[in-house]
Amino acid sequence: MAKNRKKLKIIPLGGLGEIGKNITAFEYGEDIIVIDCGLAFPEDEMLGIDLVIPDVSYLVKNKDKVKGFVITHGHEDHIGALPYVLRDINVPVFGTKLTLGLIQYKLEEHGMINDVVLQNVMQGQTIELGAFRVEFIRSTHSIADSVAVAVHTPVGVIVHTSDFKIDYTPIEGEPMDFARLAELGKSGVLLLMADSTNVERPGYTMSERTVGDTFEEIFMNARSRILVATFASNVHRVQQVINASVKFGRKVAICGRSMVNVVKVAMTLGYLNVPEGVMVDIDNIDKYPSEKLVIITTGSQGEPMSALSRMAASEHKKVEIVPGDLVIISANPIPGNEKFISKVINDLFKKGAEVIYESLADIHVSGHACQEELKLIHSLVKPKFFFPVHGEYRHLKQHANLAHKLGMPMERIFIMDIGKVLELTEDSAKINGNVASGKVLVDGLGVGDVGNIVLRDRKHLSQDGLIVVVITLEGDSGNVVAGPDIISRGFVYVRESENLMEEVKEVTKQALVKCEEKKKNDWASKKNIIKDTLRDYLYEKTKRKPMILPIIMEV
Amino acid sequence: MAKNRKKLKIIPLGGLGEIGKNITAFEYGEDIIVIDCGLAFPEDEMLGIDLVIPDVSYLVKNKDKVKGFVITHGHEDHIGALPYVLRDINVPVFGTKLTLGLIQYKLEEHGMINDVVLQNVMQGQTIELGAFRVEFIRSTHSIADSVAVAVHTPVGVIVHTSDFKIDYTPIEGEPMDFARLAELGKSGVLLLMADSTNVERPGYTMSERTVGDTFEEIFMNARSRILVATFASNVHRVQQVINASVKFGRKVAICGRSMVNVVKVAMTLGYLNVPEGVMVDIDNIDKYPSEKLVIITTGSQGEPMSALSRMAASEHKKVEIVPGDLVIISANPIPGNEKFISKVINDLFKKGAEVIYESLADIHVSGHACQEELKLIHSLVKPKFFFPVHGEYRHLKQHANLAHKLGMPMERIFIMDIGKVLELTEDSAKINGNVASGKVLVDGLGVGDVGNIVLRDRKHLSQDGLIVVVITLEGDSGNVVAGPDIISRGFVYVRESENLMEEVKEVTKQALVKCEEKKKNDWASKKNIIKDTLRDYLYEKTKRKPMILPIIMEV
Repeated sequence: MAKNRKKLKIIPLGGLGEIGKNITAFEYGEDIIVIDCGLAFPEDEMLGIDLVIPDVSYLVKNKDKVKGFVITHGHEDHIGALPYVLRDINVPVFGTKLTLGLIQYKLEEHGMINDVVLQNVMQGQTIELGAFRVEFIRSTHSIADSVAVAVHTPVGVIVHTSDFKIDYTPIEGEPMDFARLAELGKSGVLLLMADSTNVERPGYTMSERTVGDTFEEIFMNARSRILVATFASNVHRVQQVINASVKFGRKVAICGRSMVNVVKVAMTLGYLNVPEGVMVDIDNIDKYPSEKLVIITTGSQGEPMSALSRMAASEHKKVEIVPGDLVIISANPIPGNEKFISKVINDLFKKGAEVIYESLADIHVSGHACQEELKLIHSLVKPKFFFPVHGEYRHLKQHANLAHKLGMPMERIFIMDIGKVLELTEDSAKINGNVASGKVLVDGLGVGDVGNIVLRDRKHLSQDGLIVVVITLEGDSGNVVAGPDIISRGFVYVRESENLMEEVKEVTKQALVKCEEKKKNDWASKKNIIKDTLRDYLYEKTKRKPMILPIIMEV
Repeated sequence: MAKNRKKLKIIPLGGLGEIGKNITAFEYGEDIIVIDCGLAFPEDEMLGIDLVIPDVSYLVKNKDKVKGFVITHGHEDHIGALPYVLRDINVPVFGTKLTLGLIQYKLEEHGMINDVVLQNVMQGQTIELGAFRVEFIRSTHSIADSVAVAVHTPVGVIVHTSDFKIDYTPIEGEPMDFARLAELGKSGVLLLMADSTNVERPGYTMSERTVGDTFEEIFMNARSRILVATFASNVHRVQQVINASVKFGRKVAICGRSMVNVVKVAMTLGYLNVPEGVMVDIDNIDKYPSEKLVIITTGSQGEPMSALSRMAASEHKKVEIVPGDLVIISANPIPGNEKFISKVINDLFKKGAEVIYESLADIHVSGHACQEELKLIHSLVKPKFFFPVHGEYRHLKQHANLAHKLGMPMERIFIMDIGKVLELTEDSAKINGNVASGKVLVDGLGVGDVGNIVLRDRKHLSQDGLIVVVITLEGDSGNVVAGPDIISRGFVYVRESENLMEEVKEVTKQALVKCEEKKKNDWASKKNIIKDTLRDYLYEKTKRKPMILPIIMEV
């Protein structure tokens, strides 16, 4: 069987052992396809970094093989790295209509829209890409138009759920295509790759529609202006706010850059259904009585620069919070954002607003499947092998346990890491080899020019600041002709620490005398001796360790 | 009635609009008493700060009035600022036995133990302090020996719950002294001050004992070594781990500095009941079979330097995690620590350990009262006025709502802020005036020498690093005789950015020419022009804004 001598390689380049930057390559012979191409947000210790994209050097090295990017939905952690990766690997991008609409907007922002081929695929459609046939399967998630994919390969069918939940009553369209998943399961699926985000949660994720019921209840009783903060990309959530607004005769204004953009894209493409005359411009909200107004805004994670945070801090140009305003924060905190959100809630309460948030009412549901939903998918797809995806190690591990409890032997379950290669034949699977993978940090215009040394310095500077010591030496004699001058930043209040600064000068002079005595007269030795002497001195005096930068000039 | 011409002032100096640093002054005429004296942990934006203590300048100014500190329990947010505050205001400290034991340990660490008077008070006892009689009322919380206080003042009785929960089956001793609270309520309480931490949670906090049941179940089935991470100060939790260990024939070792200390204090004072031969030294754990061993450790919040984090990262000197180890994280994440804990859980799983944490089993209960418990206290104490304490604004606001729903008119409820003065007579209460209050930052040995300017610089340095530009000028002519030299840290990889650094030199030279042309030859102008020119140039080239430090030397 010549056909099957080649093996299928599945190579995750992101999305495992981490939340975000989902990207997985499928390679067979001379063909590679890539599923999703997302970004991650920087960890706390990545000081000053704007965003994180996957290291795709393996794809760049093999770019002649790459046939296209298959995108499952329009969230940042699935599309956000495209503008960076497409610069090096310019191949067509396949996705459903809303997904491509959001990608298009992103490419326009990066001035790349004319350089990229975007190919629209319908839910239910199958496309051919080299050795692969990729089937787009209708799914449900916290963004419209999401798909799971079945990749038909020469060694068998791979089902990749991507992010999903099971919503029997979605806001728009039909539920996930269970029938197709069952059909695939019946005819034999080699490998299942499934979303592990919510695997620690028992039971089911509630339908998006339940949030609409809560909105109706709240809107019915509200006698003042309503503000709803949610994720811009959650078009269905926005639709439900609009529905409740229409029902209770309120106008709707949109606020926050990404909310304005997504609403525009979604309305243009027909994913938001807004009756004539309901939308009003944020600049005109003063023309309507507040009890007839709803403002949909960004900022549900309390991001300091978001519209809601700025309103709460009285820094927003167009919306001022007034006593009686009812603010609904329709989202749960993403881990790490709890304190930001808490600050916004506190600020809103202080301004006299009423605030409804997760611990007080059912104003949010997750977009990811809980344990019972995952069990349904495993049972429908009945794969030979299983590879949990999208999650930190703890989630992958729990998802492996869940699959095992459903009857799959542990040796058929692969807890992978990014860069590892899962090699499959028609009846075998094993981890075999590694490719380059990792994080590429984006800081301003720089992609990859900030690494560990720079971050370590930023960390050091952030903890205790720095002290610059400058001396000018006479070239021939080596005598000090100016300085030492001492400049500090982020260390202590200089005005209150004049004595300390004088002492630092004195200690520097003593260090120079020590150099003289020890005949250490090259600049490197002098700098080291100054640095060591000052470090010990300052630690003794303050228990702090500022960065010390000795600079020697020569005239 | 001469007696009542004076008014009672209650002045919170911490613990409102924030979590932590609880401290409240009661002032009547020439007498002040202070309830609690805690610290807070630094917020994310307080870069490099070790801890935060309250601004007590009002107390220092009035130190002749201060009769003593009354401490309700031994948590850091109630005792942690004592070593700093007692330096300026050396008055007796009153507390129950375990509370004083923990304070004593803290004062020893600061080398202050001989300078401070610690006075032991029993639960149920009343002490006289100037115009006040302070009654220590038995309470329950996540640390042993905690009390609520009733302060008998010339204008009436104030009940301050401090941190509490209602536990009908505490591990040691009896439940909260409801009878006394009811008695006080019956004879008339002027003001209730009550813990707002858990006011957003409906229902009841479960008894500490339920955690013991879970431990027993887990221990019964465990066939390997068990590690339990919890808060060092939760003596009852530690007791329950010891009980389960004894029941299943395991030895117990203690790990982590604060755990070792608290266990020592608690054992010495009789708050931990450990049968002979159960405790083993952490250095000797290899002498016991792992299925006969339990290690109780710090690190339940994933703190990067804690024992458990170091074990998980293979950096602990005495304990190495091996496959099969069962790790129980007996705590919930404090907001802000979610990512730390998640990292520890991931690392432990990767090492092959089994990990049981909050989302998987009932291995933790809170130490604070939920809504139904708060309602009980309000109903027992039946105060005339109410002042919610211990919480961010959102919590204080919700607690006010809860009291209002129980029938108290809003005008009798005071949502206060630190520094505000609540003035009470026998039948009135109003907010009247302000005193100095705020946060004092502790960084190394420095107390209060780091403020906004220093923090702003640290923030700036942490985001984009810095560039130092040094030039040496000839004094008379003003000609450049050395430099410009450019040094950067935390900005870009210098090796990969040699061109950029050369350009920076060039731009600096052009800036100097510009100074010449514009006849701006004083140093301040030169520095400003260099700074502005470089900032614009670098932002254009990199979209980053490093700190720019121009230094001019003169020979």
